[in-house]
Amino acid sequence: KTIHLILILILASVKGMGWGDLGVLGQPSKETPNLDAMATQGMLLPNFYTANPLCSPSRAALLTGRLPIRNGFYTTNAHARNAYTPQEIVGGISKDEILLPQMLKKKGYASKIIGKWHLGHRPQYLPLENGFEEWFGAPNCHFGPYDSSNRPNIPVYNNSEMVGRYYEEFVIDRKTGESNLTEIYLMEGLDFIYRQTMAQRPFFLYWAPDATHAPVYASKHFLGRSQRGRYGDAVMELDYSVGQILSWLQTLSIANNTFVFFTSDNGAALMSGINGGSNGPFLCGKETTFEGGMREPAIAWWPGHIKEGTVSFQLANVMDLFTTSLSLAGLSPPDDRILDGLDLTPVFLSYSHKLKDRPIFYYRGNELMAVRLGQYKAHYWTWSNSVEELKQGINFCPGQDVPGVTTHTQTQHTLQPLVFHLGQDPGEKFPISVLTKEYQDVLLRISPIVEHHKRTLIAGVPQLNMCDLAVMNWAPAGCEKLDKCLKAPASDPWKCDWSH
Amino acid sequence: KTIHLILILILASVKGMGWGDLGVLGQPSKETPNLDAMATQGMLLPNFYTANPLCSPSRAALLTGRLPIRNGFYTTNAHARNAYTPQEIVGGISKDEILLPQMLKKKGYASKIIGKWHLGHRPQYLPLENGFEEWFGAPNCHFGPYDSSNRPNIPVYNNSEMVGRYYEEFVIDRKTGESNLTEIYLMEGLDFIYRQTMAQRPFFLYWAPDATHAPVYASKHFLGRSQRGRYGDAVMELDYSVGQILSWLQTLSIANNTFVFFTSDNGAALMSGINGGSNGPFLCGKETTFEGGMREPAIAWWPGHIKEGTVSFQLANVMDLFTTSLSLAGLSPPDDRILDGLDLTPVFLSYSHKLKDRPIFYYRGNELMAVRLGQYKAHYWTWSNSVEELKQGINFCPGQDVPGVTTHTQTQHTLQPLVFHLGQDPGEKFPISVLTKEYQDVLLRISPIVEHHKRTLIAGVPQLNMCDLAVMNWAPAGCEKLDKCLKAPASDPWKCDWSH
Repeated sequence: KTIHLILILILASVKGMGWGDLGVLGQPSKETPNLDAMATQGMLLPNFYTANPLCSPSRAALLTGRLPIRNGFYTTNAHARNAYTPQEIVGGISKDEILLPQMLKKKGYASKIIGKWHLGHRPQYLPLENGFEEWFGAPNCHFGPYDSSNRPNIPVYNNSEMVGRYYEEFVIDRKTGESNLTEIYLMEGLDFIYRQTMAQRPFFLYWAPDATHAPVYASKHFLGRSQRGRYGDAVMELDYSVGQILSWLQTLSIANNTFVFFTSDNGAALMSGINGGSNGPFLCGKETTFEGGMREPAIAWWPGHIKEGTVSFQLANVMDLFTTSLSLAGLSPPDDRILDGLDLTPVFLSYSHKLKDRPIFYYRGNELMAVRLGQYKAHYWTWSNSVEELKQGINFCPGQDVPGVTTHTQTQHTLQPLVFHLGQDPGEKFPISVLTKEYQDVLLRISPIVEHHKRTLIAGVPQLNMCDLAVMNWAPAGCEKLDKCLKAPASDPWKCDWSH
Repeated sequence: KTIHLILILILASVKGMGWGDLGVLGQPSKETPNLDAMATQGMLLPNFYTANPLCSPSRAALLTGRLPIRNGFYTTNAHARNAYTPQEIVGGISKDEILLPQMLKKKGYASKIIGKWHLGHRPQYLPLENGFEEWFGAPNCHFGPYDSSNRPNIPVYNNSEMVGRYYEEFVIDRKTGESNLTEIYLMEGLDFIYRQTMAQRPFFLYWAPDATHAPVYASKHFLGRSQRGRYGDAVMELDYSVGQILSWLQTLSIANNTFVFFTSDNGAALMSGINGGSNGPFLCGKETTFEGGMREPAIAWWPGHIKEGTVSFQLANVMDLFTTSLSLAGLSPPDDRILDGLDLTPVFLSYSHKLKDRPIFYYRGNELMAVRLGQYKAHYWTWSNSVEELKQGINFCPGQDVPGVTTHTQTQHTLQPLVFHLGQDPGEKFPISVLTKEYQDVLLRISPIVEHHKRTLIAGVPQLNMCDLAVMNWAPAGCEKLDKCLKAPASDPWKCDWSH
């Protein structure tokens, strides 16, 4: 009576890939026939959220099932600042956290992460120290190229040892945008699935390519194919790759016992201008707690189990994937800590399942900026980005200006939150008048939830406060075999400066 | 060897229904499973345009195959003003124009319009005087209720005689939003299709319901069903109706020889705030020549002929439907006048058809505001709406503000047009620098097209200049039978005031 369950979690991790980048979610360029087909064969979740408008905290939330404020992926260096894991960061994922692959191991799952890790790059923080059996990819973003004296290029790991560096062994041509990295990540994924299938082992694949993150790249075959330049080309290649993975599952006859989920780790970075993605009808983008920063494309696929072509309006988020994955694997969640995820199994398996009433919390750093409950969202703080940044041309909401909402200073509304009906007003443009009964009713429902959340919150030790040039990827494990070790400067830590 | 061709043209005419209102085009509320399925079974055209950011001129363009500046559906009372046919308008569709049903008659087609006509309400301008054999619907928008002394309620016609008036015999409850009008329009459509099928006659159905136009209404069964209030309810009912029509064609076994096209006549009216539709990622809405005002949802459906689930990036517009319909009916277009439509048959029948290079002209009243060619759009004039209107709370671009683009005065850029790459920047937020070679190349291609267009343009006699309370729907044909005739005031014409 053992159910042989195989689980794939594709977290697109395609930083910069926004809600509006999927054809099925309204991208005019229609670059995603495979993802659109995935939605047609599975379930679309238009009300799906990440845990933070930035990459590292979102990924930490996915793998721990807990908000960044609990798992430590935030900063207290300043109020309400986004923080992540550049290579000068000292911190990483705390040993006190339990990660999804650690749990799945109890049921014999083989876990692999392919692509960007982003939960800390110092040795103790790496994937193989935190439950994954295999890894192919990099600990940080593929920024660069660097000159190797002031700053090393980011290493690419195969399991516990580096096999080269970006811009060196793993070429990304900044000028043409050509790189075969997504191709490599796809092959790594197909190979892993094949090996586990042959070994009849349940597996967890965390496929997290980063092609749509700046600097954007695509394989030669995809360059110039889309309607919107390099970014669209990268989307097309990722879409193609997802199609290859799904079709591989069919070929291996394991589609019916493989749960696949597609999502992204934050909204499109609108500050990237014409080289960035789209957040569809939503306000602003990455770095903000408006819908454009945190609403994500989301598709669940599980042939024979999830009804074809369905849509669920359930409010859901990446932390639910932790709890749901445990449930699918037949595991109970850890009972010694507060988890923020729901088990979505009933949503996936019964289209007619009644929606569960639950809040969505929008954090920016150490501040709870907003809360959604049902169709309503209450903003307790608003901020796009500072006037100083604006003067430098940095704008998280280009072309958008909702007076009193897209504020350029951190603006407190805790005494009288801004409230929007996201069904009628997904773009957060028309605050509901405080004089209405509707407004009062909403606050009566949301206020106790906020109060309870704050009262019971045990904030984790902030991991993203300290920076140090000495901790950068100078000499990753395996560098000596390749003669790629670099000399680190003396340690000289400082409080990282998080400007927005 | 005669091909028995049956043609349905569903022009949604759902004023206010924007590009982003279809599930398949990104509406988070996903209210359109039938239209989404129509796209899955047919072809989606993400680059489809109306001829004007307002209803009457767009409809005149559809039925004549000619730009409003040619067919007379514009005003010269002031520069670059939107005009339409309220019931005080004196003008209407010129007898010099040839309408689609007049052409189709030559091949024996029975033509019916169901819903809003909007090409003039005085007797000589009505549908049965202009090629249609049947009509069920109203000549003007369903504004009201009026008191019948200062202003009559809009009549509903069955063919050449009125059968009642809105808010009187045809109830629209302004408070609850309940009305069974869409239901009636659906039944009228199914009945017409049935009768022509039984009679083995080719037919042209122009199904033009107006439920999503303010004041928004829906049938009892649909009220309260959507995620976004009454507007979403109305969209759901229209979607349901389209599904019923398509399924009826299958039932009658005529789907394979029925070409169905779905589109809208202008972008969503964003000034309607939370009660309006969505233009997805596009800038501004109805009344403007930004993409939000004129890019329309568009689906072509013709089982067995149009390849399932295809997307064509061909630049196309409503005037193409005139030329294409003639082609499908085996007719040559009139050769005594300039037509603005292309024959899209090759696009529909061959997915791999090479895109035809052709411009899209964006007019506001008597001014050519912008031109699109390929991925590039050049704005020669920009205007959202006046500062005076803004002060009254009228805003065609709420929450959007692109400096120098969404201007509040009519701003001329003819010497140095604003140029956007709509593939990379569908939201028209990032003008291409005039210093680039890209900019110069674009202008070199677009300028001669604009010059040629202006040089060869023969503007029609403007039909939308004069207003007169005496011409309102006081005593439409058939009123005496119903005892519904009202007394008209003495004629006292004035130049209509078009404020935007």
